[in-house]
Amino acid sequence: MNDRQILTDYVYKMVASLVQGGVEHVVVSPGSRSTPLAYAFASTKELTMYRQVDERSAAFFALGIAKATAKPVVLLCTSGTAAANYFPAIVEASYARVPLIVITADRPHELREVGAPQAINQPNLYGEHVKWSVDFPLADGAAPTLPFIERHIARAVAIATSAPFGPVHLNVPFREPLLIDFSDELPKATFKHSSIAELTPSVETKRELRDILCATKRGFIVIGELPLGTDLTIIWDFVRQLKWPILVESLSNMRTSVPEDCMPYVIATYDAIMKSDDFTALVKPETVLRLGAQPISKFIMQFITKSQPNAYIVVDENPMFRDATGASTHFIQATIGEWLSELDVRDNMLEAEYLAEWQDADDLALEYIEHYTDGAIDEGAMVSLLLECIPEGSDIFVSSSMPIRDIDTFLIKTTKDIRVFANRGANGIDGVVSTAMGFSQVNKRETYLLIGDLAFLHDINGLIASRYQECNITIIVMNNDGGGIFSYLPQATVQEHYENLFGTPTALEFRDIAHMYGMEYLRVDEITEFFPKFMMAKQRPLRLVEIFTDREENVFAHRALWQRINSGLKAWQS
Amino acid sequence: MNDRQILTDYVYKMVASLVQGGVEHVVVSPGSRSTPLAYAFASTKELTMYRQVDERSAAFFALGIAKATAKPVVLLCTSGTAAANYFPAIVEASYARVPLIVITADRPHELREVGAPQAINQPNLYGEHVKWSVDFPLADGAAPTLPFIERHIARAVAIATSAPFGPVHLNVPFREPLLIDFSDELPKATFKHSSIAELTPSVETKRELRDILCATKRGFIVIGELPLGTDLTIIWDFVRQLKWPILVESLSNMRTSVPEDCMPYVIATYDAIMKSDDFTALVKPETVLRLGAQPISKFIMQFITKSQPNAYIVVDENPMFRDATGASTHFIQATIGEWLSELDVRDNMLEAEYLAEWQDADDLALEYIEHYTDGAIDEGAMVSLLLECIPEGSDIFVSSSMPIRDIDTFLIKTTKDIRVFANRGANGIDGVVSTAMGFSQVNKRETYLLIGDLAFLHDINGLIASRYQECNITIIVMNNDGGGIFSYLPQATVQEHYENLFGTPTALEFRDIAHMYGMEYLRVDEITEFFPKFMMAKQRPLRLVEIFTDREENVFAHRALWQRINSGLKAWQS
Repeated sequence: MNDRQILTDYVYKMVASLVQGGVEHVVVSPGSRSTPLAYAFASTKELTMYRQVDERSAAFFALGIAKATAKPVVLLCTSGTAAANYFPAIVEASYARVPLIVITADRPHELREVGAPQAINQPNLYGEHVKWSVDFPLADGAAPTLPFIERHIARAVAIATSAPFGPVHLNVPFREPLLIDFSDELPKATFKHSSIAELTPSVETKRELRDILCATKRGFIVIGELPLGTDLTIIWDFVRQLKWPILVESLSNMRTSVPEDCMPYVIATYDAIMKSDDFTALVKPETVLRLGAQPISKFIMQFITKSQPNAYIVVDENPMFRDATGASTHFIQATIGEWLSELDVRDNMLEAEYLAEWQDADDLALEYIEHYTDGAIDEGAMVSLLLECIPEGSDIFVSSSMPIRDIDTFLIKTTKDIRVFANRGANGIDGVVSTAMGFSQVNKRETYLLIGDLAFLHDINGLIASRYQECNITIIVMNNDGGGIFSYLPQATVQEHYENLFGTPTALEFRDIAHMYGMEYLRVDEITEFFPKFMMAKQRPLRLVEIFTDREENVFAHRALWQRINSGLKAWQS
Repeated sequence: MNDRQILTDYVYKMVASLVQGGVEHVVVSPGSRSTPLAYAFASTKELTMYRQVDERSAAFFALGIAKATAKPVVLLCTSGTAAANYFPAIVEASYARVPLIVITADRPHELREVGAPQAINQPNLYGEHVKWSVDFPLADGAAPTLPFIERHIARAVAIATSAPFGPVHLNVPFREPLLIDFSDELPKATFKHSSIAELTPSVETKRELRDILCATKRGFIVIGELPLGTDLTIIWDFVRQLKWPILVESLSNMRTSVPEDCMPYVIATYDAIMKSDDFTALVKPETVLRLGAQPISKFIMQFITKSQPNAYIVVDENPMFRDATGASTHFIQATIGEWLSELDVRDNMLEAEYLAEWQDADDLALEYIEHYTDGAIDEGAMVSLLLECIPEGSDIFVSSSMPIRDIDTFLIKTTKDIRVFANRGANGIDGVVSTAMGFSQVNKRETYLLIGDLAFLHDINGLIASRYQECNITIIVMNNDGGGIFSYLPQATVQEHYENLFGTPTALEFRDIAHMYGMEYLRVDEITEFFPKFMMAKQRPLRLVEIFTDREENVFAHRALWQRINSGLKAWQS
């Protein structure tokens, strides 16, 4: 067999094994060394291939697809710093628990560490931030090579999709010449599939958990962002049994599409009401049960730390369980599954009054939040309006920093069907545009992106994706000319250096960018024009709404809201 | 002592130790966790602080400053993916041997790996791509802490600036509150300074080298990109002694400012003449001496591999010496230093005819290259004109991919004082705008950047730096709408997938970007208008020249030149 045939068989075996493992989407960045595999991907009808020249954005784009599909997505780039550009998204995938199969093409062994161009030390490039890293053999035609590929790709898929999900790294060397023969049909697979375990607590653990829950008079559940693909109906059934207050973060997607009968238990305003010391003194819990990631709200976490419940039980998939309070008393390793309903916690002893206190405070806060837009014209008001405007059945991707906090403040519990997503693994403001665009590519629902000006600028190259595939997304940029979140921190008091180091205004506006990328553009300076204009019929698939706001005004208006809720709670208690 | 004073002392000790170590430039990206150090940098008059919100670009900006100054530059960012964004520039710094001191702020130990926001596993984040990584202690007021800081920073500087230069990583945790008291004066240093070794060959090695060189009848020197800060006069003195042909790459900066008496020995057209088999058969060497990095030209490397010289001696600073030919016979670990002149190789036996053959071929190729612009209107012609236009005393920063190859083809030997720089550590097209902008910040000479459209787009965020500090640079974009270099490769023959995977046209033009950033903009479609317009007086400090070229035309014109030279060499030999 000649070298070209050996190389052809090698790459199509890789492709076939990925397809066999359930991979459907591949994001490729152009480069020479990755040619054999890029050609194999491009010629395989079972795969959808996306392209993006900026590898940093490409990796976040893949992350977005994986978030929308809860399935592993393949990345492919050439050798050299291209691979290093994947790093931020890989770190995010690692902490956000998103399955990515990162394939970096490499030079053959004789061109490694000898000063050859675009050759860097790639095996284990991403350190501990991938679940597995493996250096593939060259296409050598040896008998063990094709079986190696098939099983190692099956392993890679299994590792990426076992709980908790995460990224894996395959480093694949290619020796020149890099051309392959094209094939219409993939080779047949020998390996069938991997069967991934559910993480279920033991009978003993379930009994212990049930005993704690049922004996509790004062307790609540906290639900953060849940693992990809979590079946929410299981949790709703559990809520119907337990009838405890459930403090649900916007990212849990349990504030929206709330089943009517579960509405009374959902507490969405906890971040605001937790700011009241009077209220927290009133609702000190014996038991807290936490599912999913740590919530965004600092106040709920501080409240738990301060109240030191008898039982603060964290359910998580990883023994490196996420809890920064230092108050946890139990860790239960588990995926959300049927075992929750099997606990049978209907006969628990929660005091009716305890639930009522949460409900009353929530109602009070809701009142203020719903009337927020009456006076305010800040970002909070814009976000409130946005949440109203967004049609039923759509999704909103939200940037870290202020946008997710505003969503978490102003998204109240509702039966309306919208969903909220964000990059909260490492909470970076990088790669947000790309993640949202990748997400929107495969999402069957209308997608909106809410983002600040610095985050938008940071990943402006996310827009390049629209030059290679049709993209359908409305991007809403809150342009407050700089880093708005820092205004809420003590740093803001240091006037001499504050604007230089934290405000960092760029005085940039994005109309030119919209023009360069052929986007529909809307400039919003006042709240009055925002609403009708935004609702206008869509002219183009790619849209940019730029809302100009004021950083000081934002802080002032947010603090005023919290103050009103605080006073309201005081008056209600006395 | 209170916590605030302890933190203040800690960060000013860091700053004082960096200043003591010779650090002058600091590049900071905004973030909360890095606040104490950012404030300390901002308030220290001994340091110049630069800002850039995109950490990927920030790191390349720092790399550019370090390349221009040959001194270590400090980077500072907050915790989380911010730090991961530094990775591409760190990899480049590692292979390009550029001293960077990368400081990543981190969360304190109790917030690591517990799901806290913006907390990722940062110790050893960059793996083997930094020379050293150290996790600092918290500001704890303990007696050993301040001495630890002083000596570990001295170590970091010493490691970054010992041969070969490279990046080091300090991970520095901070616990809240993050505010410090400001201080006008830095604490006094106890540690004075590190004295870094020169790498000098042993007497025995020098004798052996001298013996080989002096006994050689047919030999040449190849000079690639040299270590930062190399004293070229040492090499010129050596050339005056040896009187061998020296094949100098554009990046060695030995093609320009050539001393009159050394002109006869400089061969700058080797890439073109090496394409002729007739010529390479004629000049088969016994001995090759190589200094600096591997040259860009594939043909010179293939020639060396094919000729298998009796002695092919590679001088490099690192035992991981750079040579991908597989033909090297000797490695000499050394920095370029006085030892070269001390060899005393004046009485060597090089045949006059051998030198003449190189000189004649070079003259012949020069003739064709100088007349290239007569007919051609492609990128080569544009580059030729550009090299003519650029005023004496200026520098040109050149992107990887086609621009550096065009510079290497069209920059002929000259006494004119211009210098050429590029990112050739890993040869990436990422971060080029930022590196050039960082370079231009501290460079006392006029700076030009030559770059393709994809590389420009990849690091478009490099331009953000201009919003935070005055930037003075002319950026010349060769817009051939996609990846031009691939057209020269066998991949270009696969018509069905070629444009999708390699051409990757975006159909983007950059006038809008120039407008957004307030740049002076010039569009060039034909060579006739280019020259006079470009020479026009400078209106603004930041300028963009966008030259539209055609990928196919480029390939055609380049190949025609090589063909002409090839035929010329054939005719000359017969």
